[in-house]
Amino acid sequence: MVEKVINYLHENREKHLEKLNDFLSIPSVSTDSIHNNDVEQAAKFVADYLNELGFSSVEVMQTKKHPLVYGEWMEAGENAPTVLLYGHYDVQPADPYELWDSEPFKPEVRNGRLYARGSSDDKGQVFMHLAVFEAYIKTTGTLPLNVKVCIEGEEEIGSENLYEILEKQKEKFDADFAVISDSGMVDSGQPTILYGLKGFTGLEFTVKGPSRDLHSGIYGGAVRNPAMAMAHILSTLKNMDEVVTVDGFYDGVEELTSDERELIKNVPGEDFVNSTGIPETTPEQGYTAKEHTMARPTLEINGLYSGYQGEGTKTIIPSSATAKLTCRLVPGQNPTRIQELLVEHLEKNVPAGVTIDIKREPLSAKAYKVDPNHPLITKAAKSYSEAFGKETVYVRMGGSIPVVELIETIYNIPIVLLGFGTPDDRLHSPNESFPLESFDKGMETLVYYWNEVRSK
Amino acid sequence: MVEKVINYLHENREKHLEKLNDFLSIPSVSTDSIHNNDVEQAAKFVADYLNELGFSSVEVMQTKKHPLVYGEWMEAGENAPTVLLYGHYDVQPADPYELWDSEPFKPEVRNGRLYARGSSDDKGQVFMHLAVFEAYIKTTGTLPLNVKVCIEGEEEIGSENLYEILEKQKEKFDADFAVISDSGMVDSGQPTILYGLKGFTGLEFTVKGPSRDLHSGIYGGAVRNPAMAMAHILSTLKNMDEVVTVDGFYDGVEELTSDERELIKNVPGEDFVNSTGIPETTPEQGYTAKEHTMARPTLEINGLYSGYQGEGTKTIIPSSATAKLTCRLVPGQNPTRIQELLVEHLEKNVPAGVTIDIKREPLSAKAYKVDPNHPLITKAAKSYSEAFGKETVYVRMGGSIPVVELIETIYNIPIVLLGFGTPDDRLHSPNESFPLESFDKGMETLVYYWNEVRSK
Ligand SMILES: [Zn+2]
Ligand SMILES: [Zn+2]
Repeated sequence: MVEKVINYLHENREKHLEKLNDFLSIPSVSTDSIHNNDVEQAAKFVADYLNELGFSSVEVMQTKKHPLVYGEWMEAGENAPTVLLYGHYDVQPADPYELWDSEPFKPEVRNGRLYARGSSDDKGQVFMHLAVFEAYIKTTGTLPLNVKVCIEGEEEIGSENLYEILEKQKEKFDADFAVISDSGMVDSGQPTILYGLKGFTGLEFTVKGPSRDLHSGIYGGAVRNPAMAMAHILSTLKNMDEVVTVDGFYDGVEELTSDERELIKNVPGEDFVNSTGIPETTPEQGYTAKEHTMARPTLEINGLYSGYQGEGTKTIIPSSATAKLTCRLVPGQNPTRIQELLVEHLEKNVPAGVTIDIKREPLSAKAYKVDPNHPLITKAAKSYSEAFGKETVYVRMGGSIPVVELIETIYNIPIVLLGFGTPDDRLHSPNESFPLESFDKGMETLVYYWNEVRSK
Repeated sequence: MVEKVINYLHENREKHLEKLNDFLSIPSVSTDSIHNNDVEQAAKFVADYLNELGFSSVEVMQTKKHPLVYGEWMEAGENAPTVLLYGHYDVQPADPYELWDSEPFKPEVRNGRLYARGSSDDKGQVFMHLAVFEAYIKTTGTLPLNVKVCIEGEEEIGSENLYEILEKQKEKFDADFAVISDSGMVDSGQPTILYGLKGFTGLEFTVKGPSRDLHSGIYGGAVRNPAMAMAHILSTLKNMDEVVTVDGFYDGVEELTSDERELIKNVPGEDFVNSTGIPETTPEQGYTAKEHTMARPTLEINGLYSGYQGEGTKTIIPSSATAKLTCRLVPGQNPTRIQELLVEHLEKNVPAGVTIDIKREPLSAKAYKVDPNHPLITKAAKSYSEAFGKETVYVRMGGSIPVVELIETIYNIPIVLLGFGTPDDRLHSPNESFPLESFDKGMETLVYYWNEVRSK
């Protein structure tokens, strides 16, 4: 049966690519109200496609800003599981236009890649799902499982209204598990299971000294220099072995198992030295760089400033110094608690002669991780391998995907991240593209996967 | 005899104030070529005055920019010492004009103060010397000692051409000691001997990590954060007791004697907490704030920057971090050597994973200090006390006066700083003024002083 479905995709490849081109030609930029009409057109495109396929309850749900498209296929029966499919049809702005080699909203294929804004993030991947549904329905008359489709138009502006909708209409969107295709593989053609994301917290603090910048000749020796005080405070946060030295920071963090270390070892890692130009990597003591980036918490200074920043010399004692900090967290760390530990640590380490002013970052995210041995995951790995002809690797990632935390918080269901992007896709940048290999083999992966998970 | 001279000053006070007004009315702003003609007029004013008094060899010496006025009185005989009197007739720009309560180049007396650009810095103080010479010559027919007058027009733009002239015509300007009246007293009406100035050196360093800002989620844990590395490096420069922890920094620094500590204690010090808004002073361990500001070396961060400085959060690892450092030095510290020690210290403390780029500040200055018990100094103190009716205090200052180092380097003669400005004079700011009390009692001080030092 699966072969029929895949054959259908092969036979209709040109038609699908043309239809995808129509989708990508709509400049559905969510940040800019000048594109409000385009955003609506893109929503309509998705809803029309679902209607064509015979989905029920298809709806362009209005929000305070951009609509969310819903549709469901519940004909697989009670014994089949229900999946919530999440994606987004809005895109990042395309400027600066002059840096694009072809027009961002006139899709063009070059060297096996489809160039267009949204080709990878996320219209291309949303379209793959719809085309696979089409293939199943046209060849088998139904889908292997029940599907609830949720495609929003506000992902690139922070999913402002998504939480409210999912929370208020919990029943409507409820499912046995969720699938999100809005991420990537570690390398082109390398099947990748993303089974963990890091959480996030942060704050900004300002060390305050004199009420104005002072002449260093007159006041140097009487007045604590806020920039030096800040340096001392910052140096107490992390030691030179990259171990965070904030009390309680690692509490509840589960030690990496040898199984996981093995999984991480098998990921074809980026050559950090080569790609970033650093002299050498400096991971946390006792861990490899891959282990630290994927699976250990981090604390970074994102920016700092104090006093005179111009050319040459200005002999002042600055009146203040500011640092911005963020942490990437792992399962076991509560973002709010970590933020509180940081605040306590900072306040405890303020030297005499200065005061501190702390601004807590309001956004935070909990880390996400599924058991890599969960059947929904191992089946995904198997489907990937079958389609791409290559062993699947398992990765965790340092970033966060806010919608993952959102779905987990509201529904507490397994979330499977089936991403087909590649590191060369240039998301959010000029010349965004998506490999046609990902398009073809990604759809095959989805065909296998829906078949694999058809029974509860 | 001295009484006669002082009487002359009293009798001619109005005439002198009028003449000073003429001098102050010339907008001799040296930074702005639109005032080139005014600068020349001010030079001419000084030269004319010297000619009127019968000085010989009076000359408006042309330089690459603004002229220097020279004149000498060598009729005091071979047994009398020769003093080199330095001052400057150029002034800072007066803008923003709208912040002045009266016009900057239309002198006005209000509440016992003469308001005008240059009233304190330095035309007012230069004029006092000329008026005192007039009083001596008109009443006694000569001056008590031989005088070489050197009034430049480039002080406010860094004395660009002074070094070359003094160096090339060494004989012409040579003297037994120098007097400079271009500084102030610690308080209005408080006779002050400024017997020490600090030296100066500095550098800027940049900690370099990745070749571009990196996503903290993807690279955090593999890449050393340059801002954090910089914080660690900075924290090794000075401890929380405000002791500089750079090897060799204090080598050669003479310990404060109990005599000097007594002198410093007697200075009516600024209430640093009140005037700067800090919670408390934090001087070097073992010293008071006054001792540290006046007589101990300091190291300050003048500015630093790294990464994101805007509103909110940007989760990057910055590609670099930069800090600007300067030191104020005391006698016994060689600025070049201190700079070298700093460079060595920084290079030694660079952690793995980043590199460092150091820019040495080209300007430096050696500290200056005269023995407070030198007769030229004690006589100055006595003259001050006699004129102001108050015990003289002895201070050292954290700043540098470049011309002091210049004269010391070329001539290696004692330099006496006879300043009559006050902390309220607003030098270089709108509403510059000079107390008439300083005008009157300062001239009396000069009358006493020239009489005191008349014999070698
Ligand atoms: Zn996306
Ligand atoms: Zn001056």
